Formats: sequence, C-alpha cells, structure tokens
Amino acid sequence: MSEAETGRDRQLYGFDILSTPLLTDLYELNMFDAYLEAGMTAPAVFEFFVRKLPPCRNFLVAAGLEQVVRFLREARFGEAELAWLRDSGRFSQQAIARLAAFRFTGDVDAMPEGTVFFPDEPVLRITAPLPEAQFLETRIINLLHFQILIASKAVRMVLAAGEDRTLIDFGLRRAHGAEAGLLAARAAYLAGFAGTATIPAEPLFGIPIFGTMAHSFIQAHDDETEAFLHFARARPAAVVLLLDTYDTEAAARKLVELAPRLAAEGIHLRGVRLDSGDLAEHARRVRRILDEGGLDQVRIFASGGVDEHVIAAHRAADVPIDGYGIGTSLTTSNDWASLDCAYKLQEYAGIARRKRSEGKATLPGRKQVWRRFDDAGRMAGDTIALLDEPGQGEALLRPVMRDGEPVAPLPSLEEARSRLRRQLERLPAGLRGLATDHSYPVVVSAGLQRLMAAVDSQSAH
Amino acid sequence: MSEAETGRDRQLYGFDILSTPLLTDLYELNMFDAYLEAGMTAPAVFEFFVRKLPPCRNFLVAAGLEQVVRFLREARFGEAELAWLRDSGRFSQQAIARLAAFRFTGDVDAMPEGTVFFPDEPVLRITAPLPEAQFLETRIINLLHFQILIASKAVRMVLAAGEDRTLIDFGLRRAHGAEAGLLAARAAYLAGFAGTATIPAEPLFGIPIFGTMAHSFIQAHDDETEAFLHFARARPAAVVLLLDTYDTEAAARKLVELAPRLAAEGIHLRGVRLDSGDLAEHARRVRRILDEGGLDQVRIFASGGVDEHVIAAHRAADVPIDGYGIGTSLTTSNDWASLDCAYKLQEYAGIARRKRSEGKATLPGRKQVWRRFDDAGRMAGDTIALLDEPGQGEALLRPVMRDGEPVAPLPSLEEARSRLRRQLERLPAGLRGLATDHSYPVVVSAGLQRLMAAVDSQSAH
Repeated sequence: MSEAETGRDRQLYGFDILSTPLLTDLYELNMFDAYLEAGMTAPAVFEFFVRKLPPCRNFLVAAGLEQVVRFLREARFGEAELAWLRDSGRFSQQAIARLAAFRFTGDVDAMPEGTVFFPDEPVLRITAPLPEAQFLETRIINLLHFQILIASKAVRMVLAAGEDRTLIDFGLRRAHGAEAGLLAARAAYLAGFAGTATIPAEPLFGIPIFGTMAHSFIQAHDDETEAFLHFARARPAAVVLLLDTYDTEAAARKLVELAPRLAAEGIHLRGVRLDSGDLAEHARRVRRILDEGGLDQVRIFASGGVDEHVIAAHRAADVPIDGYGIGTSLTTSNDWASLDCAYKLQEYAGIARRKRSEGKATLPGRKQVWRRFDDAGRMAGDTIALLDEPGQGEALLRPVMRDGEPVAPLPSLEEARSRLRRQLERLPAGLRGLATDHSYPVVVSAGLQRLMAAVDSQSAH
Repeated sequence: MSEAETGRDRQLYGFDILSTPLLTDLYELNMFDAYLEAGMTAPAVFEFFVRKLPPCRNFLVAAGLEQVVRFLREARFGEAELAWLRDSGRFSQQAIARLAAFRFTGDVDAMPEGTVFFPDEPVLRITAPLPEAQFLETRIINLLHFQILIASKAVRMVLAAGEDRTLIDFGLRRAHGAEAGLLAARAAYLAGFAGTATIPAEPLFGIPIFGTMAHSFIQAHDDETEAFLHFARARPAAVVLLLDTYDTEAAARKLVELAPRLAAEGIHLRGVRLDSGDLAEHARRVRRILDEGGLDQVRIFASGGVDEHVIAAHRAADVPIDGYGIGTSLTTSNDWASLDCAYKLQEYAGIARRKRSEGKATLPGRKQVWRRFDDAGRMAGDTIALLDEPGQGEALLRPVMRDGEPVAPLPSLEEARSRLRRQLERLPAGLRGLATDHSYPVVVSAGLQRLMAAVDSQSAH
C-alpha cells in the first residue's frame, strides 16, 4: 500500500520533523536507555568542533546557534513520539518515562553567530546529564554543520565581491530540501549577502527578498518585447528584465527601444539580468548598448554558475556587473559539501575524557578559546585552553543557557551579521583571499597539554 | 530584537515549511501576478529534466515523485500565507484572491520512482494553467533534485557492494538539514540500502532502522570492558560493539574474553564496528582475533569515510567486512552535490515553446521517452519523442494525476525499490561500474527534430 493511502498523508510528515527530538540516530536512544540501566546520569560535557579545514576554506564562520537554542527549548516527546517509542518495543519503560518528561535542563556555552573560528576550537559546549546530552547530538550537529558550512562558503563570495557588488541567494531549488533552502538563505545573509529569492526567509528571518522573472515568462509570449512590457506593467516599481532567453544583445536593443514607452508609463527600469553564456562578454556588450541608448542608470545582474572564483575574475577584469544571483554553489557549498565536524564527550562525572581513535583523537576537558590581536587590531592567533586557565585577549565562548533557560536574548541575525563584518576587517590579509592559506596560528595551552598527557597515562584501557 | 523574542518562537518556523506553497522564489509569485494581469492563464506544459550527467555518474535514478504528488495535493495558502501576501504590498488583489482559492488542478505524468534515466529525458511533466504550473516550479525542483541526486549516488554504492554486503545510511548529522536527512534515508533505501540510522524514517517511510553505540558511551566508562557489558545488557537481542575508541585490536581481544560471560547471560553478540584508521587492515586483524576466539559468527561492520570507491576496493581485496555504515558521502553526495536540472516551459496555449539560451537550449513540446531492449533483455537505447509520435519499446512516463487527482495510488517505496533492482539487472555492463561510461545511446526522434526546427524558424525574436 502506498504511504499516500495511509493516515499519514494529512501532513507531509507525521510529526513536526523540524522540532521532534525523534529526529536522531537510533543509537542515541539505545545509549539513552543503556545509560539509565547502568545508572550513569551524572553531568557530561560535550563540545562541538570542526576537525579540519577544507583545502578551499581559510577560516570558518559560527552559525546556527539560534536554531540549536530553539531546538533545545522546544524539543518534546509528544503523543506521536511516545506512541512510536512504545510500539517499537526497543526501549525500557524507564527510558520511555524519562523521555516523556524530557525538558532540556543543561547549560550551553558557545561562540556567538558570526564569529570567525578554526579547527579544533570548540564552537559550542553542552553540559547536561549524560543521557540527555548524548541523544541531542545528532540534531545539534545537523543544525550547526549546515549553517557553518554555508556561511563559511558565502563569506568567500562576499570577500571576493567587495563593497560595490550585490549578492543575492537564488539557490532554494537545488538546496537539499526545504530546511536547507531556508537556512542557507539565513547563513548567506549572516555572511553578508544582501538577501535572497526565498520568500519565507522574509517573514521568518527578516531577510530582504528579491525576485525578477524567469525564461518561461518570455517563452510564454509570442514576442519578447511584449513579454517585457507585460512584466514591467505588472511590477512597475523596480523592473528587472531577463535578456538571454533567445539572443542577449538583441534583447538589450529591444529594451533601449522600449525604454521611452516604459518611462512614459511611469515604470522604473531598474536592471537587466544575464543568465547564460560568457557572462563577462555579454555584460560588456550589454553595458555598451544600454549606455549608448541612454540607459546608463540601468544595472546589470548576472546569474548561472556563479561562484567566488567567477566573481573574483570579473572584479579583477572590471567587468560591468553590479550584482549576482548565486544558486547551487552557495546553497550546496558545491566545492566542499560537508565539514569534518564532531560533537564529543570531553568530561563525565567531573573526570576529563578523551577518545584516541586514529586520526580522530580529541582534546579533553571543558575549554575556552582565547584570541589575541596585534597592535593594528588584526587577529594574531588563538589559544585553546582549559576553562579554568587564565587566558589573554578575547574569550570566544560565552554563556548562552543555564539550567535549560537562555541567560539573555540571543543577538539578532542583524547583530550576528555586523559581528562578522567587524571580524572580517580584523582578519589577517592572507585569509581574506581565495587562495589556500592555513597559516593562522592556533595553539593548545600548557594546561590542556598537561591534561591530555594525564588522561592518557591514567587510562587503564 | 532577537527572533526568539518575537511571537515566532512557538514553532521552529511560522508556517509548515515542508508543505507551504510560499516556499518558492519571489519571482514565481511576481510572474503569477504578471500572467494574471496579461490574461495569460491558458494551459502550459512544463517538464523537469537533468541537463547533463556528472562525470562520476553513469545514469540517474528517478526519485521524489511521491513527495511532489503530496505537495501538489496539499499545497494551500492558509491564513499565515495570506496574511504575508497581503502585508507584503507586492501583489494585486486579483493575485491574492486566486492564491487564496488555489488547489492544484493540473495533470502530472512522470517516470515511476526507481526508473533509470538519462540527461534531457523528461522525468516529470506538469500540465496546468500557466500561473499555477509556474509558481510550483521551485519546490518541484527542490524535491525531485535532491532525491534523484541521492538515489543516483547510493546506487553506485549498492552496485559496488554486491549482494553480500549490507549498507546502512548513517548520514543524518551531516545531511543539509532535517528534510535532507529524512529524504536521503528514503532515496538510499529506494536505491537498495538495507536501512538507516535515522529514526523517523521508520514511522514515516517504513524503512528498517539500525543503531549501535558511539565512542562517547565507551569514554563515559572508566573501563572499556565494563562499557561493553553495560551496553550489551541494555540491548541483549542483537549487540553491536564499537572497537576503535582506544585500540581496536586490544578491544577485540577484550571482547573474546568477555564472550563466554555474555553467552551465559543469554546475550546475542551480533557484530563489531570499526570507525577509524585503515579499515581493511583492522578488519583483517579483528577477523583473525574473533575467529581464533571462537567468534566466527560475529560480523564486522565498518564506518567512517566510506564511499563507493572504498567499498569496491575492499571487495576486490576480499576484505572481511560484512556491512557498512555510510554517512556524509551518501547524504551530501559529496563528490557531486548537485545536478544540473531544470523545469522548463515546453508548450503554452497549444504552441510548442523553446528556450535557446547558450548551453541551455530546450527540447520543445510534450514528450515521451521510449526504451528499447536487446535480445538478452539489456537496455539498448532510449528515444525522446513527441507524445503523439509512435514509439518502440517501453514508454517510461506514465499518467500520475488528472485534474489535480491521482489516477491511482502511487507504487509504494518497496515497489519502487524492486523496480530499480529489476532495472539494474538490465543495465548495460559498462554502466554498472564506477568508471565513467557515458556511452548509453539517447536519441531525439525525427518528429521532435522537425518540431525544434519549426519552432526556431517560426519565432520572430
């Protein structure tokens, strides 16, 4: 029988998959149960960090904390979840009862969104009873990983574009599902994009939205000029017309002819969009046609296969493109579609813990990251230290939640965006470019090194 | 002010972002409005297709139709959506009234899920009034693109693994958001995976779920053997223990020592998992330790950086691994994280239409794909033809919806999985391997070629 035939079809999913705590790996609930059976419910400390930089990223950008905090505050096992837990026959009565009463009661410390960070640095720390801190792992990683991934890609485009070129997210259609599309719009805005084409990003996140027209609009008309006219009359305030459905330069000339008529009707022709072929070459030709036709105030937007390298090449060659619509390369981070990140147990019941798996060893204990600046105010180096060690410079992790409640309202998305903009100004020059530069110094404090040695020597495994 | 401070925080999102028709690009609604103003509401035909194969894919797998049909049946502008439309000030009264009454009234024809297909072949065709068919574009692409992407990656792993090795999806944490995690589990199962670690995939899609334990469970204990015992007692039916937290072979020897005690307690030790280092080398050593310890029935599972190339190398070298947990490479399709796909207007008001943008020209008209087989039953070649042309072999597109209603229940996920399994048996040998083979013949029919020429010559642009 098709799923569409069952009772499930009233909603796309039976639960709210965005907030259900059942959105996790089965092993998390297996362990929840096993911890309870073993009586292991003392406080545990888990930290989220990225193990290494992709070759094509020089730094990373903290993002997604707001969604994590919301998840922690709202995660509940409701009737649908409890029915599944009972029916599955996998879990003890004790575990189900604990999950039914579950409220997140732990502490969260984290880097604010918009913070520049590096491998091995804890971005977020959860301190909570072991079973609780454990089973939240999967969704915490899922939420942090994706927005960090996209913000860290988007910021390269922002740096490549400089101040004068506008960047818009066009990538919902090839993002990996609905949530990816929305959160990519958010991460891109945080990184400095001007906005997105994705409508719900405006009501949900307050992000400016932009939209022009598609080729199909032109194709549905028998005549391209008529299509321009129909579209312009329907959206007279700020018209952007798509030129490349048939012949880009011919379309630009039609537009020059049409312009007096549009002006007479009070229509404001704001720009044109190019979406195929050699964008630089078309932009130069179209700019010339528009300028010669008296349309020098009309801006040129480009889309189609744009990424940070295309933008940098255009900028270096003074290509007259005023803004870009960026899709797939942004919302899938297509040159590197994942980060090697982890959420690892660093302390249990007051004792520091360490995983020593080959290539995946962890830094034990509760940690802080300290950032030093040089006399010019540039970032000079980070130290990963134990939380109770003294440090120099700026402490990057801040208290976010205590006993399950936020300590203060989180910074807004606009504040996170401003934070990142200020941090970019303090970035070492080598890290601002597109070429690989993994030279930023991150060191492990003496205290943390001593703890690593002590944990290794004490463990009797 | 933080978003967490506004009224929006009762839900992770203000609307149900998985089913809201507002989950689209702004230009879709701009065009909706402009079409109404221009009186252009005649039937339009849009087709979804992939433009080209990535270098590392030899064919693609149709997937995601069930989610598209559900979206089309359930998409409604409810109060939240209508309030946004009114408040935004962007849309005409006429457009808002039409959207308020919106129900999908069109026809859908599509390849069943689990169908092998190739570039330029229409996978799905929507026939509906132009404004309606237009604004549904973004979510239709978003849903089809992702599941096709993942199924087409997963099937390579399935072919590489052969019949004897079990594949499980472990990739929720690094999937791009919640929906991506769930739909990746579905696409992987469709492609032949045995199941997933992602819990909601069982209640929502009927997919078998699997779970073992994480390193943190071992780390939280002072003694590894004690951790094994605690976990085994809590999940006695089918225990799988993780060996690589500290020293893989030492852990295997501890297990051999522990085995009689587990057996005495009636605990069934089903397997062990390796998650780091040289998986092949560890598997060989662990197999030897287990076999010498009388545990030859205990299976070895491996995870951590596994993809189709790792699996193929292990198979070629007879590495004693019985199954794999596959994460990031599956759920992000990490070697190629997007497909160059499109949803294009092919006909409006009974007249075939064609986009001629450089490198993005389309095949006009309503089309069917015909597949021929050789005498041995192997796939021999496809023809993309006009719908009303006679064809030979099997017609791949089938009626799915008429006037907004399904013509019949869709095939179930199990049926789609079986369909693909049968199709893989009929795949030309070259396409089954991991090496690039783009030799499968796909031709354009004489009738379609004539139509292309006619559309180009008639267009006065």
